[in-house]
Amino acid sequence: MAIIDGLNKVFESKIRLGIMSVLVANGSSDFATLKSLLELTDGNLASHTRSLEEAGYLTCEKKFVGRKPNTTYIVTEEGRKAFAAHIDAMERFLKECRS
Amino acid sequence: MAIIDGLNKVFESKIRLGIMSVLVANGSSDFATLKSLLELTDGNLASHTRSLEEAGYLTCEKKFVGRKPNTTYIVTEEGRKAFAAHIDAMERFLKECRS
Repeated sequence: MAIIDGLNKVFESKIRLGIMSVLVANGSSDFATLKSLLELTDGNLASHTRSLEEAGYLTCEKKFVGRKPNTTYIVTEEGRKAFAAHIDAMERFLKECRS
Repeated sequence: MAIIDGLNKVFESKIRLGIMSVLVANGSSDFATLKSLLELTDGNLASHTRSLEEAGYLTCEKKFVGRKPNTTYIVTEEGRKAFAAHIDAMERFLKECRS
């Protein structure tokens, strides 16, 4: 169906949309920042970042800051492209809805 | 997170977005038309229309056309409002992404 073609199933979740919009705007973000911006539990955020990592849209770097583990998420080139394509598809969808 | 506020979880699925865009544009649609427009299996379409019905966004009327059962889906006033609010939230999201 033309109106929903190009919408990416990986981005059906608004949490994943939120994560990607932060990463695309900033290049990277750490776990605590994403968790606070999106008001999520640890488990919920981890599950969505895992899905995005499995899709190849982000990579993560685990480090220790003192004794505390800290994970940084970095958007991949593929992730940027996929997000841009999804945004374009959302725009086409809205245009059709408004016409 | 402001950028994803207002996005409606019921409409996270692109199939449900597709169903609602047909219903909002036409007021109603029957099962066969939706199935063919959205290229879905019976089970998949039935599961998504059930979710939308449970949310109060559509009602369905079951009839027989000759010996064949036929279901017509009708968008509710609540469904129209929820869809319009979601479309507005998508627009705000896109605006933020583009800025």
